[in-house]
Amino acid sequence: MSEYYPPTTEIGIVGAVPRERAERLVVLGGGSWGTTFAKVLADAGHDVVMWVRRPESAVEINDAHRNTRYLAGVNLPPTLRATSDLGEAVAGATIVFLSVPAQTARELLETLRPMLAPGTVVVSLMKGVERSTGSRMSQLVHEVAGVEEGLVAVASGPNIALEIAREQPTAIVIASPLEATAVRVARVARNAYLRSFVNLDVIGTEFGGVLKNLIAIAVGIVDGVGYGENTKASVMTRGLAEITDFAVAMGARPETMIGLAGLGDLIATCESPMSRNFTAGRLLGQGYAFQEVVHRMEQTAEGLRSVGPVLALAAERGVSMPISQQIQDVLLGTLDPARLAPHLATSDDHDTPRGE
Amino acid sequence: MSEYYPPTTEIGIVGAVPRERAERLVVLGGGSWGTTFAKVLADAGHDVVMWVRRPESAVEINDAHRNTRYLAGVNLPPTLRATSDLGEAVAGATIVFLSVPAQTARELLETLRPMLAPGTVVVSLMKGVERSTGSRMSQLVHEVAGVEEGLVAVASGPNIALEIAREQPTAIVIASPLEATAVRVARVARNAYLRSFVNLDVIGTEFGGVLKNLIAIAVGIVDGVGYGENTKASVMTRGLAEITDFAVAMGARPETMIGLAGLGDLIATCESPMSRNFTAGRLLGQGYAFQEVVHRMEQTAEGLRSVGPVLALAAERGVSMPISQQIQDVLLGTLDPARLAPHLATSDDHDTPRGE
Repeated sequence: MSEYYPPTTEIGIVGAVPRERAERLVVLGGGSWGTTFAKVLADAGHDVVMWVRRPESAVEINDAHRNTRYLAGVNLPPTLRATSDLGEAVAGATIVFLSVPAQTARELLETLRPMLAPGTVVVSLMKGVERSTGSRMSQLVHEVAGVEEGLVAVASGPNIALEIAREQPTAIVIASPLEATAVRVARVARNAYLRSFVNLDVIGTEFGGVLKNLIAIAVGIVDGVGYGENTKASVMTRGLAEITDFAVAMGARPETMIGLAGLGDLIATCESPMSRNFTAGRLLGQGYAFQEVVHRMEQTAEGLRSVGPVLALAAERGVSMPISQQIQDVLLGTLDPARLAPHLATSDDHDTPRGE
Repeated sequence: MSEYYPPTTEIGIVGAVPRERAERLVVLGGGSWGTTFAKVLADAGHDVVMWVRRPESAVEINDAHRNTRYLAGVNLPPTLRATSDLGEAVAGATIVFLSVPAQTARELLETLRPMLAPGTVVVSLMKGVERSTGSRMSQLVHEVAGVEEGLVAVASGPNIALEIAREQPTAIVIASPLEATAVRVARVARNAYLRSFVNLDVIGTEFGGVLKNLIAIAVGIVDGVGYGENTKASVMTRGLAEITDFAVAMGARPETMIGLAGLGDLIATCESPMSRNFTAGRLLGQGYAFQEVVHRMEQTAEGLRSVGPVLALAAERGVSMPISQQIQDVLLGTLDPARLAPHLATSDDHDTPRGE
């Protein structure tokens, strides 16, 4: 239909994996998302090994088929195996899936580099950037682990781990600069409850997962203030527009942002009580100060830390981000949360409409 | 930034209405949305008259500043007046806002035609099409009331009436083929809690309000089945893509569908327990048959009636609408609601990805 709308760029992949195409796969990281993804791959009929840091987690996964600490109440496939020995986990794997905290990725990738056989595909399941360098995860895979760009892929979308672990139907998008790699990973990462789509815009796919956290904070704020669905929908729609402008300035394609990795992830995050960023916003909206919010939350809401850096980059590139600016003002205590609302979400301060 | 993204097509209008620019306005229709919009205009400082069918409603609005039947608990501005005399209401008005049931619009517009002074702007606040002809409301205003197209506008967006009546911050979009008309209406229809945006795509703005009901049914179905936020976000994202394809085939611009009148309205509708279409979908998802759902609902869910006609038009124009097709299958009882999910939402039945 159009050249830039998801139906054409997010290519659907369907059908079961024939037995003879089962692959030897490894997932690095035993958190809720890594464990869920390992289950997805095992449920698709592949031979999957998880690498986990704690030996006792490996024992629990192998013996009890559970990962109680991160995925309570979910039965894992008996075929799924785990080890805390990285070399053993990676040996023979054709695709490596990476799901560790963003700030620890560099160290792991350095260790991983000599273990990767030529031609191994590495897929980042992570949503985040390295704080010290601003690097996206796929950049680290290429630069630190030395994987050629055509063998790097990323996965993103509306993917709340616990819901996928409970086998609720979900869509995911796999992006790689090389279509053959994206399609290969998408064929592997699909089963009866996970449908995979393909796109070629790695930058947009990764930025979608990071930037949506900013808008989730804003939606949390207006929810905390007590506003309803109109206000939240208005903030989400205008928020998507501004993070798209930003992502495009950083090299993304706008259509990615209205697909699963942008809009889809944004909706899921803004509606989920499990989202840390949404929760942090709600506390701000209820009147807690920034430091109190940080104190009250057990885990960090990544979005809170990224507001400043994103606004600085936006200013450099001349991108207007009125909603993000207002989050910053709320964090600094200079804006009443009740005033963060769509009729304020503009950089216009005059009465004349901008021309087209 | 890009030529097709909302920030450029949805032009923000800000600032208060200076006293000297206050206009004499009329709102036709005293339902919840008409009453709310009359309040919006009166709160912006305009001289507003409502036309209501029932004389007792006019008395209540004038004397008690309430419209208990449609907007319980909301105090209306004392400056807002009402009458059940159409001629009296319209006399002297510079802009006429129309908010009556879509199927009664033609009759009212025929009566209205001789009452309209030359140059009067007519704005449709309605979301619907005339069932017998398939006409959009702005088409009826032009054809039946004889208003020239450049003086016709439509309003849409994430606009749950009761929330706006409670003065929760909301964004609205005003569309007209003539930019001057859209901007004029947008300047009038804004105040401290309603921020107005402008766009020139009347077809897309009107279709957004109609088509979003189909996707709300689908989201209701998966919610009724018991699926979570991933599934709903996946259906909304892929659903937006398919209704965009349809609207574009009917002459809309795709950017409208990712703006307030498409995406914004879709999000608000899919998250609101007040939405009849969402509620109808939920009942279907819980296992009630189509006839039972119709029987259990006091008011009609318009979306249920539009699935068939939309699919017929889509087939004529070669537009693939897999989610809408599945809603139809659920309505016909040939698809288990639990099977309506993103991994099924495709017309592909082979294992080969479509090319770009």
